[in-house]
Amino acid sequence: MLKKTDARLGEFQAFMSKNGVEAYVVSSPADQYFLTGFRMDDWTLLVTPKHARGFMPEMFVGQFRDIAPFCDAEKAVYPHKAVVAAIKAAKITRAAFDGGNETFVSGMFWRKNGLHDLPGAVAHLRRRKDAFEAGLIAKSCKIAVKAYKTLLPEIKPGMTENQVRARLEYLMDMMGAKEPSFSIIIGSGPNAALPHHITSDRKLRKNETLLLDFGCRYNGYCSDITRTIFLGRPTEEFRKIYAIVDKSQEAGVKAVRAGVMTGDVDKICRGIISDAGYGDKFTHGTGHGLGLDIHEPPRLNNNPALNVSLETGMAVTVEPGIYLPGKFGVRIEDTVLVTKTGCDVLTR
Amino acid sequence: MLKKTDARLGEFQAFMSKNGVEAYVVSSPADQYFLTGFRMDDWTLLVTPKHARGFMPEMFVGQFRDIAPFCDAEKAVYPHKAVVAAIKAAKITRAAFDGGNETFVSGMFWRKNGLHDLPGAVAHLRRRKDAFEAGLIAKSCKIAVKAYKTLLPEIKPGMTENQVRARLEYLMDMMGAKEPSFSIIIGSGPNAALPHHITSDRKLRKNETLLLDFGCRYNGYCSDITRTIFLGRPTEEFRKIYAIVDKSQEAGVKAVRAGVMTGDVDKICRGIISDAGYGDKFTHGTGHGLGLDIHEPPRLNNNPALNVSLETGMAVTVEPGIYLPGKFGVRIEDTVLVTKTGCDVLTR
Repeated sequence: MLKKTDARLGEFQAFMSKNGVEAYVVSSPADQYFLTGFRMDDWTLLVTPKHARGFMPEMFVGQFRDIAPFCDAEKAVYPHKAVVAAIKAAKITRAAFDGGNETFVSGMFWRKNGLHDLPGAVAHLRRRKDAFEAGLIAKSCKIAVKAYKTLLPEIKPGMTENQVRARLEYLMDMMGAKEPSFSIIIGSGPNAALPHHITSDRKLRKNETLLLDFGCRYNGYCSDITRTIFLGRPTEEFRKIYAIVDKSQEAGVKAVRAGVMTGDVDKICRGIISDAGYGDKFTHGTGHGLGLDIHEPPRLNNNPALNVSLETGMAVTVEPGIYLPGKFGVRIEDTVLVTKTGCDVLTR
Repeated sequence: MLKKTDARLGEFQAFMSKNGVEAYVVSSPADQYFLTGFRMDDWTLLVTPKHARGFMPEMFVGQFRDIAPFCDAEKAVYPHKAVVAAIKAAKITRAAFDGGNETFVSGMFWRKNGLHDLPGAVAHLRRRKDAFEAGLIAKSCKIAVKAYKTLLPEIKPGMTENQVRARLEYLMDMMGAKEPSFSIIIGSGPNAALPHHITSDRKLRKNETLLLDFGCRYNGYCSDITRTIFLGRPTEEFRKIYAIVDKSQEAGVKAVRAGVMTGDVDKICRGIISDAGYGDKFTHGTGHGLGLDIHEPPRLNNNPALNVSLETGMAVTVEPGIYLPGKFGVRIEDTVLVTKTGCDVLTR
């Protein structure tokens, strides 16, 4: 269960007041969890300057009250209609919704009822993790690393990618995780050359690459880590590519610090790979933020529109890679927490 | 990997032409998978009368071409912008998007660029499952049942709810499932009285109820099943409540048939529970459709606005329950496939 959410709610209410908003509709399950500690589909949270009220099916009410006693709970067959009625009853005129987290159909409903679009208001507060959240991310990373280390000696040629995945998920779960933080990628041999390979029933073979991109959720918070190994004695080519990616990733991690631009971290990682002659084989961004969602702002890539300054408390990944289609690929990824003077690597 | 998708695409193109749409933007991962066999976040599918084109990050292109050779693939840093450019280049004026599956922000972008909202066009085709899809759902159900039967003798007081969940997921995975079809509910003792209990670290005890609501995904297709057991010798009260729910569920399953209204199935299940004096303890709907998503239309409940006729090929759940707060709850759920003369129960 999430703690300290009532303090967070106060912080969000202050943000609302600063932005001249008297009521805000929160629909994203991650945002709702962030503010109340309650994560469930199909309910709506309405935050006003002094209250927060959940509108939900009857069957959720008791659970919500237990988890978020600092909020009001209201049974509603149609949460959206009930929210609009509550806004009207309170004579609120400046109400807003999150256009980035509502469907177009829902957004049009809110707009028709006088609400305006203020995207990402809660996401904004979620960018920088406080010590409590950072602790949960660190624990999530610790579980992923421990499960990986337990799994390693079990990996044998003949197992399928899906069996490796299932075993890793089971180990993480038994160590306290709730679920994988995303659809785990186990890429063997040529499949390791696909950055977003869909884990398959291919059998692992001797003398080939194995790429594992995994993570779990602990109390809602994600970890993300990639390791690339070789089943047998690494070939010359594998060792060469691995060394380049390793150097790139190490330099990226060293570059992370509050105040550094995300685009500059990408430039450093990409530069090392380009200098080695593999620039066109690094076909994705260098990293991304994570927290209650596996992908959160900021992005660490070469898109100038997304180039922002790193801030203390941001949790981000650093994950350069080189992919040789039809042959193999290498990616190395760690989750790090941005500090004033650098970063804490949470996945080693 | 999904098969027969090229035929499906043709069916969708016929639907578009009937609705006077020259181009349709498909953004929902389940809809994209249904039409192409490719399931991934962050890409956009554009269907025109004779073509289908995926706009995606460079790193997906090769995989997409392998899985959907009947579609075109285009590398795009901003898939949305590329889609609009393609629509303009083809001089198409009647283009549409799915307002139920786009965020408000994206929907406004499409609208600004001349597209109109046509919600649920692909979802409409997905309601009735063809024999191929029904086979995948049946297999998904079979795995869930087999894993449950393997798990049963392992369940012992002292295990936590989360350990039971982890073990069940692992068994399903090792039997060929890809992931659970939703966040599995393991409710022990008083937790069984919460229809949407969040599986916790509570330890199972002797002489109490255990409710297991679970399912998996097999080639994308979901199963959904609930069983309620008693750890030890069932109490009089448990047996009484169980018998009522069992009778209700059995009657519901018997009532399912093409042409029957969803509301009538709910009425039958609810009637039996109400007649027994527990109407106010059955706090949710009787069932829901499922397929590539765990919750799809139709809904089997008492909301007159959602009362529709069952059709052959629909896969739905029948899952009445009685919940005694603070004490225990009983829910029994099967996934069934609607036929002309009744239904096939897939989870027994």
